[in-house]
Amino acid sequence: MKVNNTHYRSLWWDEARNVLMIIDQRWLPHDFRVQPVASMQDFADAIRQMRVRGAPLIGATAAYGMALAMAGDPSDGNLDVAWDFLSRTRPTAINLRWALDRCRSTLRPLPPSERARVALALAHAIADEDVGINRRIGENGLAIIRGIAAAKAPGEPVRLLTHCNAGWLATVDWGTATAPVYQAHDAGIALHVWVDETRPRNQGALTAWELGAHGVPHTYIVDNAGGHLMQHGLIDLVIVGTDRTTRQGDVCNKIGTYLKALAAHDNGVPFYVALPSPTIDWTVTDGLTSISIEERPESEVADIQGLAADGTIGTLHVPPPGTRAGNPAFDVTPNRLVTGLITERGICAASAAGLAGMFPELAAAAG
Amino acid sequence: MKVNNTHYRSLWWDEARNVLMIIDQRWLPHDFRVQPVASMQDFADAIRQMRVRGAPLIGATAAYGMALAMAGDPSDGNLDVAWDFLSRTRPTAINLRWALDRCRSTLRPLPPSERARVALALAHAIADEDVGINRRIGENGLAIIRGIAAAKAPGEPVRLLTHCNAGWLATVDWGTATAPVYQAHDAGIALHVWVDETRPRNQGALTAWELGAHGVPHTYIVDNAGGHLMQHGLIDLVIVGTDRTTRQGDVCNKIGTYLKALAAHDNGVPFYVALPSPTIDWTVTDGLTSISIEERPESEVADIQGLAADGTIGTLHVPPPGTRAGNPAFDVTPNRLVTGLITERGICAASAAGLAGMFPELAAAAG
Repeated sequence: MKVNNTHYRSLWWDEARNVLMIIDQRWLPHDFRVQPVASMQDFADAIRQMRVRGAPLIGATAAYGMALAMAGDPSDGNLDVAWDFLSRTRPTAINLRWALDRCRSTLRPLPPSERARVALALAHAIADEDVGINRRIGENGLAIIRGIAAAKAPGEPVRLLTHCNAGWLATVDWGTATAPVYQAHDAGIALHVWVDETRPRNQGALTAWELGAHGVPHTYIVDNAGGHLMQHGLIDLVIVGTDRTTRQGDVCNKIGTYLKALAAHDNGVPFYVALPSPTIDWTVTDGLTSISIEERPESEVADIQGLAADGTIGTLHVPPPGTRAGNPAFDVTPNRLVTGLITERGICAASAAGLAGMFPELAAAAG
Repeated sequence: MKVNNTHYRSLWWDEARNVLMIIDQRWLPHDFRVQPVASMQDFADAIRQMRVRGAPLIGATAAYGMALAMAGDPSDGNLDVAWDFLSRTRPTAINLRWALDRCRSTLRPLPPSERARVALALAHAIADEDVGINRRIGENGLAIIRGIAAAKAPGEPVRLLTHCNAGWLATVDWGTATAPVYQAHDAGIALHVWVDETRPRNQGALTAWELGAHGVPHTYIVDNAGGHLMQHGLIDLVIVGTDRTTRQGDVCNKIGTYLKALAAHDNGVPFYVALPSPTIDWTVTDGLTSISIEERPESEVADIQGLAADGTIGTLHVPPPGTRAGNPAFDVTPNRLVTGLITERGICAASAAGLAGMFPELAAAAG
């Protein structure tokens, strides 16, 4: 999407320098920093430190990591080493594993001399596929927004809530949860987006930055506010992303998503999840008992980054000295709270039957 | 309770200086600043800027404000002026109105020459009564904690969640939601308190500071985390405070309380509200439709205060420039989600019958 009227993807291949370029998202929304990812350690740091974040973007980044590894040493042994090294960078993002498995299974049968070239082409393909998937999620979600808009007076905005950043910064382009928003806005439908700040990392600031750059009206709120807004009829629709969705449609997403789903359910507000098929974990059925939740560093909760009055980016410590912080990064929203899954093929129920009906070949392949 | 081994109340009368002293809570947990409140403007600033906060403490502070007004001009006219001036400082805290009404109705029949003396004595009495009420809430809540502890292995902690700061800093002493915690801790029951940071103002840092100073084990978490912890059986009990509770037991409390009540209900976790009787608004039945929610400044959401590496207290701006913030300060938890109300007289159902049964004379007086 656009930044200062220039179209960007969240990662791109610099042909001249023969290197992957990313936006170091840790400095957003205050500073737009572009940087190369040139070594395997760079890749691990980029994913683990969340310079790149969001399940689809992590998957695409990992594919480029495999390409770099193959450019250096295309042996069978290094294929496994690179898979293992990259897979340990983030435990929850199913797309990471999906992209790495796809790379390995594609490259393994090839002669080593072919692997570097094919690995890079495959990384490009995975990135392009992500863009296509998200564009189609946008088209499918647009139908939901159109339906709500049709029941309103002309010009009265459709009011959405979103949590975290499932925007173009979390994918290669379009975003998942934001794709319907961008498509509706571009189609001339009046919108207003309530943006959860999404503690602890305040990814809502990224969403606000994206929406502002694209011209979509929005209001930034604390994560505590959404229930109250729903109680008072101020939210028509919730759309969130997902880091991993089980075969029965349980949704593992940023911590706090479950609370918003409860509030939506309690107030009769539709709660949709934008779900690219690579984010489905066909090996898991019950998300609550089967997904182990990443516990991230205390400092993410205790130390907050922002812009100081002098224009520098600084960090402040909020709780008292000696107080320990807990930081579970994700939660699981049970499928009973999900109105529907917006996939690249269409909208389906958050259930085993719904997902298997939409992706029969994937369900069958998973057994 | 104790600060550096010295017992403090959150406000006290300095006999030598003939002035009310408060803790300016805006600098906690990083700096413990005590200051006098010496003019009517000081009182308004102290309440509006949340140097003092928490419904019971606001009520007691306002009573001292009436005493100051009467010391300056004990006329009937000034009684009304002071009531009006102080009542406009915070719209939601029912205790503010309760304390002001009590002062005015006590003082009105007296000759003006008596009013200054009686007003000060009444402020002292209101402060002392608050301490007594909270101590009894603590005793009544202790019984709940004892019951949970009895079902656990010896030494296994009772795990509570609390939201905002309904601690001694929000009252004159003991706190409301924290009174059972302090009493249980002092009785030797093993506890662990999950402390919601409570955006936007991070009053959880105050709760963490209180608990740390008293030696109660605790963990500071983002407001998004509580649902996940309940899903995984890590919370035995939720106790929160309230800024206003309706005659049918709907609970108006810090924004986000409703989301935790939904999660508690969804996971079968008991959800209690510590309720001093002055916090009951007998004039309101349906909290959702009848309580207007205070919208506070955007800066509370966008600008975060904390301790910088150099030891100074600073502020950082989190969302991007140009993004507007919404800041509803409270929400209403419907009585159906409340397991019980812990009052100074005992524990009752969150219902009209429950409250009227516990406080028949107040219910009757309200009509």
